[in-house]
Amino acid sequence: MADDIEQSDDEQAGGEVGEITPKSENFSRWYTDVVRRAELADYTPVKGCMVIRPYGYAIWENTRDRLDARLKATGHQNAYFPLFIPESHLQREAEHVKGFAPEVAWVTHAGGHELEERLAVRPTSEAIINSLYSKWVRSWRDLPILINQWANVVRWEKVTRFFLRTTEFLWQEGHTVHATEEEAEEETLRILEIYRSLIEDDLAVPVITGLKSEGEKFAGALRTYSLEALMGDGRALQAGTTHNLGQNFAKAFNIRFEDKNQELRYAWTTSWGVSTRLIGALIMAHGDDQGLQLPPRVAPYQVVIVPIPGKHFQESVLPAARALQDMLAAAGIRTHLDDREEHTPGWKYNEWELRGVPLRAEIGPRDVTKGQTVLVRRDNREKVFVALETVTQAVAELLESIQAGLFERASAFLAENTRVPSDYDAFKEIMAGPRGFIEAPWCGDEETETKRIQEETSATLRCLLTDREPEGDCLFCDKPAKHVAIFAKAY
Amino acid sequence: MADDIEQSDDEQAGGEVGEITPKSENFSRWYTDVVRRAELADYTPVKGCMVIRPYGYAIWENTRDRLDARLKATGHQNAYFPLFIPESHLQREAEHVKGFAPEVAWVTHAGGHELEERLAVRPTSEAIINSLYSKWVRSWRDLPILINQWANVVRWEKVTRFFLRTTEFLWQEGHTVHATEEEAEEETLRILEIYRSLIEDDLAVPVITGLKSEGEKFAGALRTYSLEALMGDGRALQAGTTHNLGQNFAKAFNIRFEDKNQELRYAWTTSWGVSTRLIGALIMAHGDDQGLQLPPRVAPYQVVIVPIPGKHFQESVLPAARALQDMLAAAGIRTHLDDREEHTPGWKYNEWELRGVPLRAEIGPRDVTKGQTVLVRRDNREKVFVALETVTQAVAELLESIQAGLFERASAFLAENTRVPSDYDAFKEIMAGPRGFIEAPWCGDEETETKRIQEETSATLRCLLTDREPEGDCLFCDKPAKHVAIFAKAY
Repeated sequence: MADDIEQSDDEQAGGEVGEITPKSENFSRWYTDVVRRAELADYTPVKGCMVIRPYGYAIWENTRDRLDARLKATGHQNAYFPLFIPESHLQREAEHVKGFAPEVAWVTHAGGHELEERLAVRPTSEAIINSLYSKWVRSWRDLPILINQWANVVRWEKVTRFFLRTTEFLWQEGHTVHATEEEAEEETLRILEIYRSLIEDDLAVPVITGLKSEGEKFAGALRTYSLEALMGDGRALQAGTTHNLGQNFAKAFNIRFEDKNQELRYAWTTSWGVSTRLIGALIMAHGDDQGLQLPPRVAPYQVVIVPIPGKHFQESVLPAARALQDMLAAAGIRTHLDDREEHTPGWKYNEWELRGVPLRAEIGPRDVTKGQTVLVRRDNREKVFVALETVTQAVAELLESIQAGLFERASAFLAENTRVPSDYDAFKEIMAGPRGFIEAPWCGDEETETKRIQEETSATLRCLLTDREPEGDCLFCDKPAKHVAIFAKAY
Repeated sequence: MADDIEQSDDEQAGGEVGEITPKSENFSRWYTDVVRRAELADYTPVKGCMVIRPYGYAIWENTRDRLDARLKATGHQNAYFPLFIPESHLQREAEHVKGFAPEVAWVTHAGGHELEERLAVRPTSEAIINSLYSKWVRSWRDLPILINQWANVVRWEKVTRFFLRTTEFLWQEGHTVHATEEEAEEETLRILEIYRSLIEDDLAVPVITGLKSEGEKFAGALRTYSLEALMGDGRALQAGTTHNLGQNFAKAFNIRFEDKNQELRYAWTTSWGVSTRLIGALIMAHGDDQGLQLPPRVAPYQVVIVPIPGKHFQESVLPAARALQDMLAAAGIRTHLDDREEHTPGWKYNEWELRGVPLRAEIGPRDVTKGQTVLVRRDNREKVFVALETVTQAVAELLESIQAGLFERASAFLAENTRVPSDYDAFKEIMAGPRGFIEAPWCGDEETETKRIQEETSATLRCLLTDREPEGDCLFCDKPAKHVAIFAKAY
């Protein structure tokens, strides 16, 4: 409970967060310290709900914009559907309601009266969106429908943790309708690739993608694909999912279209989402004992400029710092000039390292004289002196290098921590030790085996690799393996 | 009720909307027809809630982005606060809860249990945001706090209407904290000017700005300013409000800071918002019997390209249309190429006029030969032949001219329909006839007069002009006038 969003009274009441707990000492405490100390998020008086503070929200805005551009480039449009779902609608798809009903928050009274039918605060929007699609889809000419929504959703969680699991969170949910199974499957995989590109290329977090097992797939789906990232403590984080819903929702909500031969057919639908959880992935994948490390592509500030006090500060150093900021801003680089007088440069260096700004530009009286600035990387503390006339190019190159470096480091970590045990004993040993991803040939018997494995090792089945054929027998029994499965202890 | 979002069963069930009712015949029906026929929004199975469809949502995205840029340029940052507000928090500011409690939707059960304290689905966020500010504000160095949030809010409405009044709507709400009363007032007026610029310069909707009377101000505010637009049917629409909250919320939520002399003082706060209601204003201010007219700055498509069938369609006309699209897109112009084969050009012209696209580019076999395109304005149907090599410049100029033209026309309408009656009989005559804005010297006696005026004429007090001194007596009694007041029947 130490890392739950419901904190002790003194922290709820506004207790300041102090130094950051070292990562190696207590990963979970380190995570919470970083989130609060870097002002990404904070506790609220609402159980399980956090506030995303401006610095954290700016990371979300950058992430959102980069995903939104990819979705629009592939023909998707945004829309907005109601927050409330009448209970009768939620119940139309049997598996779906079974999966979500236990987590729902219900509105029972409104406008001074008790409602005739209670309303679910959306835990996901298949039920409301598909009921509208049944109205909009008439002919093959109306297909495909490719709609996405940026929205808040609510799932009542018992244990909560900043960004990773909160009662309310922000996400996007895509909901599409297609004429054929093939097109629905293509869309499901297209989005999986878009998510991979967002998470790996922009957030610099490497992922394993695969198929969810029958027991782990989305409530109501035909097939669910997921992206699984590995955190610094050897635990997996499901970073996104895409669902081929088959005709389950089309049948439950009566989404039918007249095909080119004037025959009435049920459509095929998909849904998919990523959420503010991605910010949690980012923090845990890259942070260190000094605090955050933000990949340049989503960092609110890519460069923080720290003017150094000394002779002619007001007349020459500060104006030079401002000129440097203008120059970088003109090149589209996101900057912040820390010109506060109450703090020393050293204090500012620590502060902005803690907040994960990828690059620091120092400029003092001597630098002004020499027409240079000192650039310091957050990732390896390397220092370079750069002439002001070439600084834009140098900064752009360094940011690219930092972006690539973060991904390489995280990829090496993932590779080192993906293990192939020879038997179940070795599997158990890994899970008792460094954890990480475990690759295992698996027979597909979900009922008995995965429960036992989870009980004995706390590992769960993360996904099945779709591009690999298993060899030999299942790691857990004598039956022949049907899949190469990835196991891990998950967030 | 004909225009309420709760529609007849047959329309709820997905009845198609047919022709658009002429504006002069039934303004309210015309409005609903345009909204549905242009696919801006639709009914949902949730009472009083609409779905904003992609074409309508794209207008909102453009509006949002243009406002967001203005807010960021003036130092505001975005954040995200919880959807739920514990009942005890809503009750802390007495006037505030009195104003909002009757409209609240309450979550009473969640996660399978009844909650100990019920949660309001936010009708506005002062209560939750100020409770966090009380935690974050310690010293004068923490001020000002300039935070904005883009969010959904819920107010249980008895009568609903697309965009103008819905149970759930999208908006932004800014919440700021300042050290002095002067700074809070400056912020309140700064945002009023930003809203004016958004609404007039981008949405091309002229507004009157002024101060709300004591009876009409925001629940809990010291002073409320509003922007009032005039719709085509002579009714006023409140397009946005900014509130100087004084120290009311700072005292209710204990937001105190240590000033430069180490004295503990209550802060001053403001809040302000505009919502998806702006889209309603846009539709009603500019639309005509043919449908929507969208101002170029927020139109999802600024130019629709219609290729004309004929000889060499596939080999030359369609490629030329695509090249035209690429050329315009490269210049940052938002375009749509309507290459559907099942519709005639004439059908398409009507369709895109109905959807309000500011400019149409036609290109047929003869145009390809001559290296030209035909540009047709939505506002006045003027047609010009433009050589393809100069088309980008021509389109940019025409879009500017359309933007300015829409504003001029709407401004002339507002000026013509702002009247200064000589006595209360003349006032009543105006309200029984063309309506519009009525300017009247007023004594400030809210208790007795405004109720009587509303009962007798359906006009309400919209705002008090802050830049005008009244002359002589009140229009409604013998007392001397204290304000120049604007009256109108309002949405």
